[in-house]
Amino acid sequence: MKSVEVIAIGNEVLSGWTINSNAAEISRALTDAGFQVLAHRVVPDELAQITEALEDATARADIVVTSGGLGPTLDDNTRTALAQHFNSDIVRREEVAKDLQQRFGDKTVSLDDQVLQPAAAELMLNPIGTAPGLLFGTKRGVLAVLPGVPGEMRAMLNERLVPALQERFPSVEREYRQRLHFCLLREADVDAQLRTVATAYPDLSYGIYPHQGTVAVHLSCHAESQKEADARIRPAADKLKAAFGPRYYGDSDPDIAEAIRQYFTEHKLTLSAAESCTGGAVAARLTKYAGASEYFLGSIVSYANTLKRDLLGVEAELLEAHGAVSEACVRSMAKGALARTHSDYAIAVSGIAGPGGGSADKPVGTVWYAVARPDGEIMSQLFQFPGNRKSIIYRSVNLILGFLWLEIQK
Amino acid sequence: MKSVEVIAIGNEVLSGWTINSNAAEISRALTDAGFQVLAHRVVPDELAQITEALEDATARADIVVTSGGLGPTLDDNTRTALAQHFNSDIVRREEVAKDLQQRFGDKTVSLDDQVLQPAAAELMLNPIGTAPGLLFGTKRGVLAVLPGVPGEMRAMLNERLVPALQERFPSVEREYRQRLHFCLLREADVDAQLRTVATAYPDLSYGIYPHQGTVAVHLSCHAESQKEADARIRPAADKLKAAFGPRYYGDSDPDIAEAIRQYFTEHKLTLSAAESCTGGAVAARLTKYAGASEYFLGSIVSYANTLKRDLLGVEAELLEAHGAVSEACVRSMAKGALARTHSDYAIAVSGIAGPGGGSADKPVGTVWYAVARPDGEIMSQLFQFPGNRKSIIYRSVNLILGFLWLEIQK
Repeated sequence: MKSVEVIAIGNEVLSGWTINSNAAEISRALTDAGFQVLAHRVVPDELAQITEALEDATARADIVVTSGGLGPTLDDNTRTALAQHFNSDIVRREEVAKDLQQRFGDKTVSLDDQVLQPAAAELMLNPIGTAPGLLFGTKRGVLAVLPGVPGEMRAMLNERLVPALQERFPSVEREYRQRLHFCLLREADVDAQLRTVATAYPDLSYGIYPHQGTVAVHLSCHAESQKEADARIRPAADKLKAAFGPRYYGDSDPDIAEAIRQYFTEHKLTLSAAESCTGGAVAARLTKYAGASEYFLGSIVSYANTLKRDLLGVEAELLEAHGAVSEACVRSMAKGALARTHSDYAIAVSGIAGPGGGSADKPVGTVWYAVARPDGEIMSQLFQFPGNRKSIIYRSVNLILGFLWLEIQK
Repeated sequence: MKSVEVIAIGNEVLSGWTINSNAAEISRALTDAGFQVLAHRVVPDELAQITEALEDATARADIVVTSGGLGPTLDDNTRTALAQHFNSDIVRREEVAKDLQQRFGDKTVSLDDQVLQPAAAELMLNPIGTAPGLLFGTKRGVLAVLPGVPGEMRAMLNERLVPALQERFPSVEREYRQRLHFCLLREADVDAQLRTVATAYPDLSYGIYPHQGTVAVHLSCHAESQKEADARIRPAADKLKAAFGPRYYGDSDPDIAEAIRQYFTEHKLTLSAAESCTGGAVAARLTKYAGASEYFLGSIVSYANTLKRDLLGVEAELLEAHGAVSEACVRSMAKGALARTHSDYAIAVSGIAGPGGGSADKPVGTVWYAVARPDGEIMSQLFQFPGNRKSIIYRSVNLILGFLWLEIQK
């Protein structure tokens, strides 16, 4: 397998200002394409350190991918380091000039600078922004230079770099990986089961990745074809799926929201939500995916109790008697959402995300859920979460979606 | 200044499954404590690579911090690498046994393993989980070994490691940094202005960090005290703030939602939203912060047109004549939100997030905004965004919040 090293260039990553999500995206795309990522590194936007990292990485890895340090602003040294490393003049590249002129006209002041690129580089034009990506041949393979803006990096990675690498390295043996996603399970639940499966199928590699209310299991093996890998992985995968029944929600997208979208769209059903403590995060998760408008009607984010009353019809007496974080309230919210949006299903959530607002009776992390079904029946459940506000909101979204998933499997 | 190198150990980071947020947190904490982070790297959970990274990093940096690879599972090689590197036997450390016994009793099967640690290490007991952190003396300074679980890492970093490092390296000179945040500006707008400021104040360092509709500018200098740094940075900061007037929204939290929360809370005002294309993302951003319930009443996420009509009072004729993505619709949505929630301000957004739904007339990325003011006046504006669905939604949230920020400054 061809080895990969990923280099991010930028002081903002080293100061902790920016999380290095680019390295993760590059690694995922190249791992899925059958390459093996052996190292990440991050270096400052300084000529000497960039040069050293380039020399070191190109000597060790077959494929080196950098991101960042290509902007037109005064603090970018990447191009200079590349020109020096490859002993290549920086020249005016007319393809870039033509492309930028076509896409931006004369609008942007600093485009001129992007036209100047090392002569030795093969260009990968930027489908979104201004900085082109570059490909160089190295002793062991290639060096790919991508922009640092995540959207631009992603587009160039998937549309240009991965196809270019697959063409250049048509490998025979690669690592194939199948992912299985489960909701409403903890790592420990899966671990016990996985140990049994691993004993039965010892030639596979296994990984458990819990993610705040959902768990992914990765099964992988080295094989010469997808077909061979499938044949080896399937029995183990089937055993795991059978063990957890309806809690299994898919093998492609890790997000349960996407599984829900597929289910609702396929069955021509509609969904609405009534949210309190999640504050719109349930709706935002569901609408993250293209096609959400085919089944998701909307959410009434009733953060204030007046909105629970006026927009969802939760009675003032009920709120007074039980409080907003109660089974009675969340059931009334689900009922109200169903009635006012005319959706087939409605989900509701009300809880205490903290850090304030908790009590001995209802501590921070107390979260009630409800799912209203087409037949009018309402299911409700209480969860108690540990963690901070961010984590309580995130888990609440995963759990209500998991709870909905179980309901629609019935 | 003492230099830092951060090493993350773990195959899940190299496969791209896990984003290396630990490196960002460690870097931010140590940068704020006056240390200079010069490199990050990520290595697989393999003895040879861990050993090589330890040797290389301890030779180059005064402080090396690792995270990950300390779990009780069979694939952790960090302890072995450390024992080899420091030529130190692995022995039973009674402090760990005592601590784990106190906190977990006999509950966890694999605790035994955590008691075995290199004899040369100073221990940092884990306040949350089971794996203790370790501190070693190196030729240039120290090596700190932290667990990989983010919550455990964070607690140990802040409670144990930062104080230990500050005690060991009571530095006189450190880097001070001021951050300024602006909305509704692009990198190029700020860059031109920053070049003038940089010419006037050449002894400061500058960085521009655009973030999809907001821009952060970092001004920094080396100084012997906060007071000295303030005196040197302030004139340049004031010049930049003056140049961009109301588009400046703060110097602490990078999120404009937090600036809005402070403004509304201080002025005892309330806010509501009516969302279409952002699908709850505006509400989710506003409620991310503790204290949101003091001013934010809620959002009507009217993804379907029937909800715009039934819940916001947008007239069917208006929708038919102008469509949902129109100035007339977004103004009616803002008006409806104001009327139905009785908030002081209301914001509304309707657009086409894509990838489907665009037309020649209204391409993907067409987004209308409105802000309804307490006096009933409604301001509206059109934006055209490039990019994919995720980026259009994210930018829309930043832009509507920027637009609201400008309105409340008037």
